[in-house]
Amino acid sequence: MMTIKDIANKAGVSIASVSRYFNNKSLLSSDTCLRIEKVVNEHNYIPNTLGRLNRISRSGKILVILPTISNPIYQKILHAINTECRKYGYTVLTCTTNNDNYIEKHLLTMLETYYADGVIFFSTTLNKTELEQLNKKFPIVQCCEYVDAEISGVTIDNETAVFEACTYLIKNGHSRIAMISGMTDYGTTISRENGYIKALKEAEMTIKPEYLIRGQYGFSSGERAAKELLNLKKTEFPDALVTISDAVAIGAAKKFLKNGVQIPGDISIIGFDDTSMAAMYNPPLSSVKQAREEMGKKAAELLFERMESLKGKTRLIMLEHKLVIRESVKIMRK
Amino acid sequence: MMTIKDIANKAGVSIASVSRYFNNKSLLSSDTCLRIEKVVNEHNYIPNTLGRLNRISRSGKILVILPTISNPIYQKILHAINTECRKYGYTVLTCTTNNDNYIEKHLLTMLETYYADGVIFFSTTLNKTELEQLNKKFPIVQCCEYVDAEISGVTIDNETAVFEACTYLIKNGHSRIAMISGMTDYGTTISRENGYIKALKEAEMTIKPEYLIRGQYGFSSGERAAKELLNLKKTEFPDALVTISDAVAIGAAKKFLKNGVQIPGDISIIGFDDTSMAAMYNPPLSSVKQAREEMGKKAAELLFERMESLKGKTRLIMLEHKLVIRESVKIMRK
Repeated sequence: MMTIKDIANKAGVSIASVSRYFNNKSLLSSDTCLRIEKVVNEHNYIPNTLGRLNRISRSGKILVILPTISNPIYQKILHAINTECRKYGYTVLTCTTNNDNYIEKHLLTMLETYYADGVIFFSTTLNKTELEQLNKKFPIVQCCEYVDAEISGVTIDNETAVFEACTYLIKNGHSRIAMISGMTDYGTTISRENGYIKALKEAEMTIKPEYLIRGQYGFSSGERAAKELLNLKKTEFPDALVTISDAVAIGAAKKFLKNGVQIPGDISIIGFDDTSMAAMYNPPLSSVKQAREEMGKKAAELLFERMESLKGKTRLIMLEHKLVIRESVKIMRK
Repeated sequence: MMTIKDIANKAGVSIASVSRYFNNKSLLSSDTCLRIEKVVNEHNYIPNTLGRLNRISRSGKILVILPTISNPIYQKILHAINTECRKYGYTVLTCTTNNDNYIEKHLLTMLETYYADGVIFFSTTLNKTELEQLNKKFPIVQCCEYVDAEISGVTIDNETAVFEACTYLIKNGHSRIAMISGMTDYGTTISRENGYIKALKEAEMTIKPEYLIRGQYGFSSGERAAKELLNLKKTEFPDALVTISDAVAIGAAKKFLKNGVQIPGDISIIGFDDTSMAAMYNPPLSSVKQAREEMGKKAAELLFERMESLKGKTRLIMLEHKLVIRESVKIMRK
């Protein structure tokens, strides 16, 4: 079956132009219009999107639902979603819910009233059953956070990512590894903690409750957690730290440096997300990189797949992650 | 005239509850409902918002138009707008335009079709006349960036802010002050450059073109600009630097540190925006603080003012700024 992308390729125009051809020809030059018409007629193409089926109620808008705007890792993903959607002539509306179920459900009425043609969730308060029911009626996709349900989504293997970070620390001679984690109402956070626990168990290290500190995802949470670690007896002070985000890592690093603790001399630190801050920080921070542009692009692609056919199979895409080594980990051979 | 806020105060309930009372009573407890009803009847209150006048077409949604999601200073402002709008029972839809006039105009049709009840612009491609015409028909407000037009808005005095930063450097013995600026299609950027030029002129310093470098607003732009400065003759190398953003300042700082240039020993640096990165950086960065939460709150307040009465006077609010001193400026007495 031909897609709008194939038509664009064959006509030598952008996907947005093909989208406009079907929705508002007046926006196209007559040359572009004729080129698309030729390909469309040759292949007898009928766009099979939800938008076309409900022509009159197509909004041309995609809703992106975020828990909060203040997570710096969302920016690049959102940017990629915006770029991809624009190719198809779609506009992205971004909404934050603060994880409030009432707000989220209010937003989702936009699907029923044709204010939006599809939804990308960065996180959701809906449960598995609610998501699967919604998925039957409307094009929806999960991105980053992932509720284990039969709907399309894109994420990374968070458990393996933190497992690898810890294993790298262990291989390089660290034996007292702490983790500053986040909130356990996020599935990705639980997976990352599992990776930490798994790595320590495999190395036959004891899991100490005082080494696993939970908080939020920002700088100040990192500072607070570092303060807790600084309160430990000197012999108990960790020699390495993995964190739930770069912001947490940098908050902790600042607190350590202020208290005369050297990085990586006294404690090694690995961040998560590889935001631009990680490379910019002094010392440059080793961090687990998520392919954020790729994640946004894939989320949009999955959504357009659902819009072409709601009956098609759902797909879960696991993207690669990578431990980016910089200067915040001490290399000690045993 | 009573406002929805007065009713909420008198009834001892939240503004959101009063809003729900008029729009969807079923969401309220009967106790809350009765308390509001009592106050409404006592004062014979009829809500005079655009939403009420067009009851049937009220969307309960506010549109926020951003040029891009990747500016870290937007996050706190957006968070404050979200919080304030929620108090009134409104949901915020955030949209990026990439400064594309076509996309912006497409988004603004949401007002005409009652998809949104008002707009907050972080930046706009519309000109003065277009904005003033729109302002007659719909509630709109400018926030951060400001086109000089008769519409409500909230911003800071960018010229004075950079003037003060430069004057602080001059008072502390600096005589070769460079500026890494942004793009001159932003009014706030031009104002900041004007502040730089004004301060140097007042101190009878020469304005050197090689000291005023323009780029984008992120880290990599700061790195590139620092490279240009490092290419100057040693005697020409600046002893101080003001920047258009903290990200640019940190990008430049990283490049300097990598090349053995000490901060603040060899060059003093002042950022702009006082994002959390500024405090977290090593060395901690002096920066010009904008009251970002206040800015978001005021923008929402101004919008609700316009929604209560489109015929009222427009207001431009200039918020205070503050130079936050940390450890990136060398104090040299002459």
